[in-house]
Amino acid sequence: MAMKNIRLLGPKEIRALIRKGKWDKPTAGLAMGYAQANLVILPQKYAFDFLLFCQRNPKPCPLLEVLEPGKFKTKFLSSDADIRTDIPRYHIYRKGRLQSTVKEIRGIWKPDLVTFLLGCSFSFEEAMLRSKIPVRHIEENRNVPMFITNIPCKSAGVFHGPMVVTMRPMPPEKVARAVQITSRYASVHGAPIHIGDPAAIGVKNLRKPEFGDPVTIKKREIPVFWACGVTPQAVVMEAKPDLCITHAPGHMFVSDLLNEELAIL
Amino acid sequence: MAMKNIRLLGPKEIRALIRKGKWDKPTAGLAMGYAQANLVILPQKYAFDFLLFCQRNPKPCPLLEVLEPGKFKTKFLSSDADIRTDIPRYHIYRKGRLQSTVKEIRGIWKPDLVTFLLGCSFSFEEAMLRSKIPVRHIEENRNVPMFITNIPCKSAGVFHGPMVVTMRPMPPEKVARAVQITSRYASVHGAPIHIGDPAAIGVKNLRKPEFGDPVTIKKREIPVFWACGVTPQAVVMEAKPDLCITHAPGHMFVSDLLNEELAIL
Repeated sequence: MAMKNIRLLGPKEIRALIRKGKWDKPTAGLAMGYAQANLVILPQKYAFDFLLFCQRNPKPCPLLEVLEPGKFKTKFLSSDADIRTDIPRYHIYRKGRLQSTVKEIRGIWKPDLVTFLLGCSFSFEEAMLRSKIPVRHIEENRNVPMFITNIPCKSAGVFHGPMVVTMRPMPPEKVARAVQITSRYASVHGAPIHIGDPAAIGVKNLRKPEFGDPVTIKKREIPVFWACGVTPQAVVMEAKPDLCITHAPGHMFVSDLLNEELAIL
Repeated sequence: MAMKNIRLLGPKEIRALIRKGKWDKPTAGLAMGYAQANLVILPQKYAFDFLLFCQRNPKPCPLLEVLEPGKFKTKFLSSDADIRTDIPRYHIYRKGRLQSTVKEIRGIWKPDLVTFLLGCSFSFEEAMLRSKIPVRHIEENRNVPMFITNIPCKSAGVFHGPMVVTMRPMPPEKVARAVQITSRYASVHGAPIHIGDPAAIGVKNLRKPEFGDPVTIKKREIPVFWACGVTPQAVVMEAKPDLCITHAPGHMFVSDLLNEELAIL
């Protein structure tokens, strides 16, 4: 199958290519309309604390599906996915340090591993674009700018740390609509956590994001901040668990769930 | 303090009375405007499975706060509550059987106990009344009628069972508004799970609820069904844990959080 056609494929076909090792690149723009998910896999001894951390911090950590210890087949996000093979690239961390990047994890799978799949802002960006709300980093073909704030997450067991946010600048007259639209997607970060004044949340320089790329902020535009899925990853790394497996940035799990199925209203 | 004034008290004052053993009756109608919560306390070995059950079944099991093992002070729902003393009456179950009803649980508290506080439909009923949507069981001064459906909850570890629902009848022209209003309260059961045709969800006779009381259904009225907080209790009892402590029905935890603070829109 010609790779140039990948944008026309549905999620099941994309996961089949990934499983066969035929697609190991980022998943942005694939299976448009379908939700993509962040992956965090932890040993069972950390699982209650991490589940509790997500329950306490639903905006940065919107859980889409959690599997029981040892399980690697999803039920809710897809009925035919294997979490060990169906993600283009995995990062393997030991004691909080990146050890390797791999294309499948069957070889290191263990019966005490617990899989967490978390919502991703791709879902609400699609809805913003449909409503003619600018998404600057998409216009400029960059990574979304991300900032570490002074807003503490609610800690849970060994997991604690500041909230990381994404920033999307927009003209003032678009802000209310952006709030309405993203409020519908509570399971993919939901409404903004902050609008305007970056200094109030500890963001010193909008031109210097801690992760991702800077984007153009036009005259009169307001910076709008959403909780970011990098938060749980940063919090997990800080806790230095023996083992943690995540997706490589941008190389997400492509689910069979439509973004519209995630919308709450 | 004269008990006749209890309806004028705020949540902190009500909890203080409860703590001193001076109020051991149901909490319906107290601290109007403030969220009340269902209580489930389980030994740590069941905690991950139950937290996962709630994550998978947010409509019947809307988590408001979960405490770490051994903790008995809330942080989110109140900054000064003690879960061992601040509920009017507790039910103590061993192996799924009710063993005793008590007014405080300090004597049996153990460091491995995990506390779950779940949203309660009192919150959205207040919003319905404000919008002139009839709440029949309140009008008729009865318990809400509850039915066991044929809708299976998503199981998690040892926890599984059917969804229990509440039913509120209303004229057809009120149904859309009732959906809108309760959708705002996702953390207290949220939107209805079913509208009309009781047989489709396995409810045979609206006059014979499995729990609570029957209510009048007027000509032309549509039965509207919401997921019910009795679901997690039924599921826990079915799993027959060594120990489980809950609130006695209607004797809820009165929180410092306004219902409006729980609304998502």
